[in-house]
Amino acid sequence: MTIAVVQFNPTVGDLSGNLERLVALAQEVQHAGADLAVFPELCLTGYPPLDLLENPLFMDEVEQSLEDLAAALPPGLGVIVGAPVRNLTLTGKRLHNVALLLEDGREVARVHKTLLPTYDVFDEYRYFEPVFERQVVTWRGLRLGLHICEDMWNNEEQAPYHLYQANPIDELAALGIDLFVNISASPFSVGKQAVRSALVAEICQEHGVPFVMANQSGANTELIFDGSSGIWDATGTLVSHVPAFEEGFALWDTDTAAAAPVNVRNDDLADLHDALVLGIRDYFHKTGLFDKALIGLSGGIDSALTCALAVEALGPDRVLGVTMPSAYSSTGSVTDSEALAHNLSIAFRQIPIAPAVDAFSGMLAEAFAGTDDGVAEENIQSRARGVTLMALSNKFGHLLLSTGNKSELAVGYATLYGDTNGGLAVLSDVFKTDVYRLARYINARAGRPLIPENTLTKPPSAELRPGQEDADSLPPYDQLDTVLRLYIEEQQDLHQIANRTGYDLAFVRSLLQMVDRNEYKRRQVPPGLRVTDKAFGSGRRLPIVMRWARAAERVRV
Amino acid sequence: MTIAVVQFNPTVGDLSGNLERLVALAQEVQHAGADLAVFPELCLTGYPPLDLLENPLFMDEVEQSLEDLAAALPPGLGVIVGAPVRNLTLTGKRLHNVALLLEDGREVARVHKTLLPTYDVFDEYRYFEPVFERQVVTWRGLRLGLHICEDMWNNEEQAPYHLYQANPIDELAALGIDLFVNISASPFSVGKQAVRSALVAEICQEHGVPFVMANQSGANTELIFDGSSGIWDATGTLVSHVPAFEEGFALWDTDTAAAAPVNVRNDDLADLHDALVLGIRDYFHKTGLFDKALIGLSGGIDSALTCALAVEALGPDRVLGVTMPSAYSSTGSVTDSEALAHNLSIAFRQIPIAPAVDAFSGMLAEAFAGTDDGVAEENIQSRARGVTLMALSNKFGHLLLSTGNKSELAVGYATLYGDTNGGLAVLSDVFKTDVYRLARYINARAGRPLIPENTLTKPPSAELRPGQEDADSLPPYDQLDTVLRLYIEEQQDLHQIANRTGYDLAFVRSLLQMVDRNEYKRRQVPPGLRVTDKAFGSGRRLPIVMRWARAAERVRV
Repeated sequence: MTIAVVQFNPTVGDLSGNLERLVALAQEVQHAGADLAVFPELCLTGYPPLDLLENPLFMDEVEQSLEDLAAALPPGLGVIVGAPVRNLTLTGKRLHNVALLLEDGREVARVHKTLLPTYDVFDEYRYFEPVFERQVVTWRGLRLGLHICEDMWNNEEQAPYHLYQANPIDELAALGIDLFVNISASPFSVGKQAVRSALVAEICQEHGVPFVMANQSGANTELIFDGSSGIWDATGTLVSHVPAFEEGFALWDTDTAAAAPVNVRNDDLADLHDALVLGIRDYFHKTGLFDKALIGLSGGIDSALTCALAVEALGPDRVLGVTMPSAYSSTGSVTDSEALAHNLSIAFRQIPIAPAVDAFSGMLAEAFAGTDDGVAEENIQSRARGVTLMALSNKFGHLLLSTGNKSELAVGYATLYGDTNGGLAVLSDVFKTDVYRLARYINARAGRPLIPENTLTKPPSAELRPGQEDADSLPPYDQLDTVLRLYIEEQQDLHQIANRTGYDLAFVRSLLQMVDRNEYKRRQVPPGLRVTDKAFGSGRRLPIVMRWARAAERVRV
Repeated sequence: MTIAVVQFNPTVGDLSGNLERLVALAQEVQHAGADLAVFPELCLTGYPPLDLLENPLFMDEVEQSLEDLAAALPPGLGVIVGAPVRNLTLTGKRLHNVALLLEDGREVARVHKTLLPTYDVFDEYRYFEPVFERQVVTWRGLRLGLHICEDMWNNEEQAPYHLYQANPIDELAALGIDLFVNISASPFSVGKQAVRSALVAEICQEHGVPFVMANQSGANTELIFDGSSGIWDATGTLVSHVPAFEEGFALWDTDTAAAAPVNVRNDDLADLHDALVLGIRDYFHKTGLFDKALIGLSGGIDSALTCALAVEALGPDRVLGVTMPSAYSSTGSVTDSEALAHNLSIAFRQIPIAPAVDAFSGMLAEAFAGTDDGVAEENIQSRARGVTLMALSNKFGHLLLSTGNKSELAVGYATLYGDTNGGLAVLSDVFKTDVYRLARYINARAGRPLIPENTLTKPPSAELRPGQEDADSLPPYDQLDTVLRLYIEEQQDLHQIANRTGYDLAFVRSLLQMVDRNEYKRRQVPPGLRVTDKAFGSGRRLPIVMRWARAAERVRV
């Protein structure tokens, strides 16, 4: 039997579009010789559909679309798809997350998801009732251990604890199966491909059974899906796969005695790059509302990298760079931006902000009389730029990309309603040190400095007052990023971080407090592309009004 | 035995402050004669602690604080408190949500929460492992049916379905108890008090057992807690209660044969008013960062109401109103704002925005050459005001309150980075028709038009172009709000709404589409005070990049 693992890039909520594409892909894999096509989790709705699932009309249309899909799929082909279905009992959440095996216009098997991820960006128990029941799906003589995404993730034998009671993998293996089939919507983070693949290989080796995994590709708002779908033989060797970040399929003949191992790229930086490009591209493609990306170019590294990535995602004709110098801007602010625009062959515009800054200064002269210049005056400049960019965005239907990185966002080194403005934050999950690595990677790949060397080497500065440098307010970025990575991504805390880094306790505490105190800014920034296991945004939910004074003296009454 | 139900207003994360206050309240109720004090759910951490619960140092400090609390409570008093504790097994979520009975420095009983709300604003299964085990807590001869918040909510006998399998109320009753004791953190929404009270009364009547409920009061970011704690006798009659929206306690002697029924205010509009005032007050009080509230006054009803509520919450000395007229502002824009400021006795400032608008106009002249004036130009005015207000906020440490209402936010009738700017959105869960009702309520209570009559009677307008009125872009607010209430709060959809209202299908569809398409704006607005069962914000999670074309023709391939 020939199995096709199909790495599908759905658009959330686009039931008719997804249906059409599912049918086309099914036809394609049948022509290529497949007997059974395996599509990802919730492929009909796209993942994550979020609270669309709570809309009864949406679920009515899902039900109708499932019927239409079954009728439209090519005869003779078995097709496994994922969809939400209604829970028809009178108890529990109103939906189930299921895998359906469709054949010749009918549903021939249905498997429910058991383990419902409800952590980080995942909210599945918000919508779905789990079903703790295991069954083998026997189809054309093949005993399939069909299950959904998280159902395979409670199997890590060496884990310090298990998040769930049930272990669907072990239970399926105990029932006697020929093949594990996992349908997933497992998002990308740097290094995740290797973790996922190692887990699958461990499962194959433990049970001596091959494994088919179909994972979603493409980006939906914050979440980017690499796919990395594949087929592993009974020894845990990857024998067929679909390249990451693309839509496509791979075939595998179950009768093949020994297939050659497949090598996949193992390059975190290249993956990070490709994920960001895909994130930008799919935001534009799937919203379908914006002709061009608009980027404020400061001459600095963040805006230069954002611009270069946008050009890769959209092409140079669909990117507009705008430099907005002020009295405090260095010469490089304009010349480096110009050089970048020239290197990337994009449209470029220069709009000095002095008129607006002077106007606000005059308007506020009476109110500000007798005060010293400070953050208020600095922010006016950033906000004058923000207003200018939004005016261009509103006038011409361009999407403003915001350019702040994760390090800045973590410590609040950004102006709300100023440089944070935009529809999509491209680098909000990329630390500053990784911003530099990505910029160098792009230049190395191009074989020439697309991003000007001066942008890479000059000291980072917000240029909001004379002679300002980031180093005046922040520690060196390698130290900052080390602390932030331990705190945010590894959930380490004060003493652990001080011990692991050797940094001074007061220094570490001051950084953690900066992170904690700036939650209010992060609540109002645009959605950002998630590329780590812990991004700011929907996966990190902290109170704004709160008073946890870390390591403060406790009151002993 | 005398039981005190204590309605406690904690600050999220303030372990030392909450501990100190818990001890003081315990001493107070003991002096008043209580043997047993019942505090709300998670009272040590405040509700909702959100992802603070994922921080190991935070949980270390919670554990230490629990020990300190037990030691500091007055001897001889039984005290029931709520706290998160670690799950010490090797399976499941890492915490439990528990009620602890403390006495003479020791924990004498522990009860786990079984039903974990994971819908709307609630994410409890993100953190807590449920425990499906029922026990009676016998204390000084009294058999207590102790349980936590949601544990009582699966008992609605007439519900079309039950969200959970377990019914802790029935299970406790079956074990034989003298008294139900519920500790809650059940947030306010208009009408919720009556629903909660009716549910408790039904439980009392069903089982013939009295009921003690201690609910949190106070506001934490979006969520406002009315408390409305009380004691119901075995017939379901409320016999003792703590007034809503305040911290306080009520006593009840279990040996009292028949207590007199207590009447509680039944006034949705007054509750809505009090909730908003509390929401503003606690945001200021609990953050402790801001001396004054800053409000941009347009002469319109939304900013006038926001301002009047802020004055009630903070006093006139802590509110600053700023009017920022443009070329398109009506005379009333300034004079009505002045009159309001005068009526409320607040500081007032006038800053015309023409210089900034002219400056942007000049800066953009080349880019905009040959285009017609439109949304871009309108938004520049709103954003010039936003920049001005934020400059004052940054300079003087005032908190900018944003004034948009739920109707506008629903259909995107607001300028991002302009009038949406602020730290707290006071009216974002109040429909425009309710904004008018609240304004009239305030005037009626004051016995004079604090909010100028002209503000109440003139046609609503954003005043961003000559002669503009809301009615140019939007239907009459009574129609709009009717549709929005059905769609957002009652989850009705296109045909249902058209049928129920008699409105034209195309008209309803156009409104629903406006709601769907403006999700991107709502993602970036400040947190807003939640006063209905379905507010924008953390309780309503919709994808931004999505293409659900409601009722579009389905593709039949």
